Amino acid sequence: MTIVNKQPWQEVVARKRAEQAELLAPFTTGTNNGNASTLGDTGEQGQGDEGHDVTLIHSANELVDLIDRGDRTCVAVTKAYIKRAVEAHSKTNCLTEIAFDDALKRAAELDANLAEGKKLLLPLHGIPVTLKDQFNVKGLDSTIGYVGRAFAPASDDAALVKMLRSLGAIILAKSNLPQSIMWCETENPLWGLTTNPVDKDYTPGGSTGGEAALLASNASMLGWGTDIGGSIRIPSHMMGLYGFKPSPQSARLPYLGVPVSTEGQEHVPSAIGPLARSLDTIHLTMSSLIRAKPWEFDARCIPLTWREGIYRESFSRPLIIGVLFDDEVVRAHPPISRVLQSAVDVLRNAGHEIVEWNADLHEDCVRIMDQYYTVDGGEDIRNDVLAGGEPFIPHVERLVNRGKPISVYEYWQLNKKKVELQQAYLEKWDSIRSPNSGQKVDVILMPPMPHTSVPHGGCRWVGYTKVWNFLDYPALVIPGGSVQKDDLSAPWDFETRGPEDEWNQKLWKENGEHMASLALPVGLQIVGRKLEEEKVLAVGKVLDDLLRGPAGRK
Amino acid sequence: MTIVNKQPWQEVVARKRAEQAELLAPFTTGTNNGNASTLGDTGEQGQGDEGHDVTLIHSANELVDLIDRGDRTCVAVTKAYIKRAVEAHSKTNCLTEIAFDDALKRAAELDANLAEGKKLLLPLHGIPVTLKDQFNVKGLDSTIGYVGRAFAPASDDAALVKMLRSLGAIILAKSNLPQSIMWCETENPLWGLTTNPVDKDYTPGGSTGGEAALLASNASMLGWGTDIGGSIRIPSHMMGLYGFKPSPQSARLPYLGVPVSTEGQEHVPSAIGPLARSLDTIHLTMSSLIRAKPWEFDARCIPLTWREGIYRESFSRPLIIGVLFDDEVVRAHPPISRVLQSAVDVLRNAGHEIVEWNADLHEDCVRIMDQYYTVDGGEDIRNDVLAGGEPFIPHVERLVNRGKPISVYEYWQLNKKKVELQQAYLEKWDSIRSPNSGQKVDVILMPPMPHTSVPHGGCRWVGYTKVWNFLDYPALVIPGGSVQKDDLSAPWDFETRGPEDEWNQKLWKENGEHMASLALPVGLQIVGRKLEEEKVLAVGKVLDDLLRGPAGRK
Repeated sequence: MTIVNKQPWQEVVARKRAEQAELLAPFTTGTNNGNASTLGDTGEQGQGDEGHDVTLIHSANELVDLIDRGDRTCVAVTKAYIKRAVEAHSKTNCLTEIAFDDALKRAAELDANLAEGKKLLLPLHGIPVTLKDQFNVKGLDSTIGYVGRAFAPASDDAALVKMLRSLGAIILAKSNLPQSIMWCETENPLWGLTTNPVDKDYTPGGSTGGEAALLASNASMLGWGTDIGGSIRIPSHMMGLYGFKPSPQSARLPYLGVPVSTEGQEHVPSAIGPLARSLDTIHLTMSSLIRAKPWEFDARCIPLTWREGIYRESFSRPLIIGVLFDDEVVRAHPPISRVLQSAVDVLRNAGHEIVEWNADLHEDCVRIMDQYYTVDGGEDIRNDVLAGGEPFIPHVERLVNRGKPISVYEYWQLNKKKVELQQAYLEKWDSIRSPNSGQKVDVILMPPMPHTSVPHGGCRWVGYTKVWNFLDYPALVIPGGSVQKDDLSAPWDFETRGPEDEWNQKLWKENGEHMASLALPVGLQIVGRKLEEEKVLAVGKVLDDLLRGPAGRK
Repeated sequence: MTIVNKQPWQEVVARKRAEQAELLAPFTTGTNNGNASTLGDTGEQGQGDEGHDVTLIHSANELVDLIDRGDRTCVAVTKAYIKRAVEAHSKTNCLTEIAFDDALKRAAELDANLAEGKKLLLPLHGIPVTLKDQFNVKGLDSTIGYVGRAFAPASDDAALVKMLRSLGAIILAKSNLPQSIMWCETENPLWGLTTNPVDKDYTPGGSTGGEAALLASNASMLGWGTDIGGSIRIPSHMMGLYGFKPSPQSARLPYLGVPVSTEGQEHVPSAIGPLARSLDTIHLTMSSLIRAKPWEFDARCIPLTWREGIYRESFSRPLIIGVLFDDEVVRAHPPISRVLQSAVDVLRNAGHEIVEWNADLHEDCVRIMDQYYTVDGGEDIRNDVLAGGEPFIPHVERLVNRGKPISVYEYWQLNKKKVELQQAYLEKWDSIRSPNSGQKVDVILMPPMPHTSVPHGGCRWVGYTKVWNFLDYPALVIPGGSVQKDDLSAPWDFETRGPEDEWNQKLWKENGEHMASLALPVGLQIVGRKLEEEKVLAVGKVLDDLLRGPAGRK
């Protein structure tokens, strides 16, 4: 939906931001206008005490248990999270739409239900949820970073939002994303720039950057994003989070009610997926949602039930894991490779088998994907930006001017190439076998990006994530480690393979020292075959437990 | 693949037909050039005796049992079918590529395997299979009705063909289809016109018309077609056969190695599916293929296993069946409505619940589907026809000249409308409930077409089938009855609703008497929700058993 603005875009922005400030004011403590009492009457002890701070619980299961035991009310949890969200926002500019009042109302209802014993405990009872500003929430805008979409509140909840609510989750707020969504950092003229909580000159990644900033600040327990080239996995990697992109072509999660740019394109659909601070939260969410039958909500979903058997089978035997260090286009920075090597060592020591993977077909996939980005000559995105009248952010301007539109017939020829590459990758997967057992690999383990978080505007290569959108494979990012001082002494002189490789070489040379001083997070990416969501989550858990111990972040 | 011809198209046609005649000659008995001995040495008794004619067995399970018991060899079965195929071809012009020699070789191998007890009996051991001239068979052309694709033999088998072979099936031949495939009758300049075995002035339907002519002549046990608007279901209906179109958008059967016109379009994909003379054959084929994991062969397939539980559940309780008599665009001829009413009565008498369905959204879906047919301005089909140099058949000429190409951006807007309609239909399905139990309907029962087989060129409305391609729902056709003399006295005067309705009114007025004298078959269409293939086949069996008894055509 595009609303053509009659007003100067700056006025729309000013009104929208003022509206947000007004909604935030009652929850802003310690400011001139803040009404501290709104959050002050929690009736809870030790809210500020780290040992008792409920926002430091990373696992949704643990939080639901806590509420079930009566240790905390949903209202108390919601207030604690609102406080964190306000803090995170003042630091990183991550929020867009505010739903705190509704959240508190819903929390009170859930508390009443539980107190009266009227209803069974719901799987996500009281879990604080935030959403990228793309998921429709009734009464709130879904701007997807366009000024022209401001003041056009959604008339209904997205299917996912309905499902989350019915599972007991509490929607707190929506969060920032880049203009057009098609960028792996987070900035738009409407809401401005979202920054990394660790260093305001660095990006939290994107396009689901607002969610990542919130989660990394313990200001949300479950975040929702979308991913068409890495938009869930990149911010997860950069902020030390867990993020999961399922297979979207035959979707198991509902996209209904989630506006997106280039809507109507079906060549490589965007996927919705969760971001969280523990894998346990991701698993609980995925299994609960799929068990709630998304195909009854959204015609695009397939009726593929949650396959606990596939999930469990992966724990019963040594896994065969393909490892890819380098996509042959852009070499990964030393901390990225070191963290991956550590994971490999840990897996091998635990008795799992490591098989060398290769980057054959990766660049072919990425280059076709790049062609797809401009098949309409940028018309869709240009229309939205022109409707609002705001300026283009530089990346989007380059994107819409990169190529001329092609004909529908030519577009179909591109689809044929896509299908051929998807088929070739299936055959590749079948051909790489364990030298011991002759078995195929279970998953691929690889970096999510060739670098960590970078200074704003510093991203240029998302080939490590995008290839899996193109192939329609599910992919999970988990935290693997962080940049260390020792990484600076790793060898980093080599002949570059092209402009992207050269750019990335320079990035480490110029920023490595600062990256190490910030101890920036480094993620690991686990990739499975089409629709093998259960297996990817299971292998993720095997590795996560090895890295952090089962008593770690559940 | 398009080969630009340097020769006049008539020469290519002549060469192609001469080649076919040469391959048929050794199997043609009683002709001047026929070498009767090729089929004469079957060592079987009573090949011409109806009581012992193996081609009169309609069920694949029964035939496999017969071979397993040693009552017939695969070679004998293959010879019997080749004889029938040659007869059918001389009557209807249904064959294109001939693979009789290979079939006999394969049959001998299967016989040897069984005799030596070396291998387990395969699920489709010895089943004679024919394929629409669209499925790649190594060494044979896949012309899809274009002269320009002649003499370009496939370098590999289609995934389906590989799977069928590995399940024990024997490929006999390929069969005719219309130029471009996009038409529900069967004619092209390369192979000519395929006729109805009942009356050469009538069509066997299309686009899988060659298969229908073969099956109706007992000259194949299992036929394979494709369906993008009714191309499996229409010929099945017209020839008194069983035909099944699964959900193709998230496919369970592999399309890999099946060239198609407008290849690369993903808006409403064509589905592959089986045609047969018994539902038992369809069920055996579908379950065997899906159990053989098509997703390991074709990257577009989804890993949804055969769900026997869903199949069986449908036999355990009264079913709720939505019934639609009229799509509100074109009224069905009296025999079509009468046969449907009989099925309704039979179901109701057996304790199943009938719920009135309505045609809301049907015409909307069909009109968008029609827009899709011309989004490339006919470029794809025109290229293929121009490459061969042959004339357009009238329907294809109208199709390629019907609309100007639209932009990719406009195409995406059409996709958005499609998704909206798919969603609206999901909500419609949820909203129509049993007045007794409040339950949703299991399937919809309706006509496959508003008429039976018609004189060549007489088809104009495929809205009864096409709507389910648009919605991505599985649909089965089973034989329901035939045109009777009494149908001529049914009232047939009404104010028509538009040109298609008017045309169909006239069709019955002018041809009803002849249709009745031919006792033309009338089918029934059973439609399920997306990917509910198991349920559709189960309900089909319930109805088929009621109509014919479990001892009928298994």
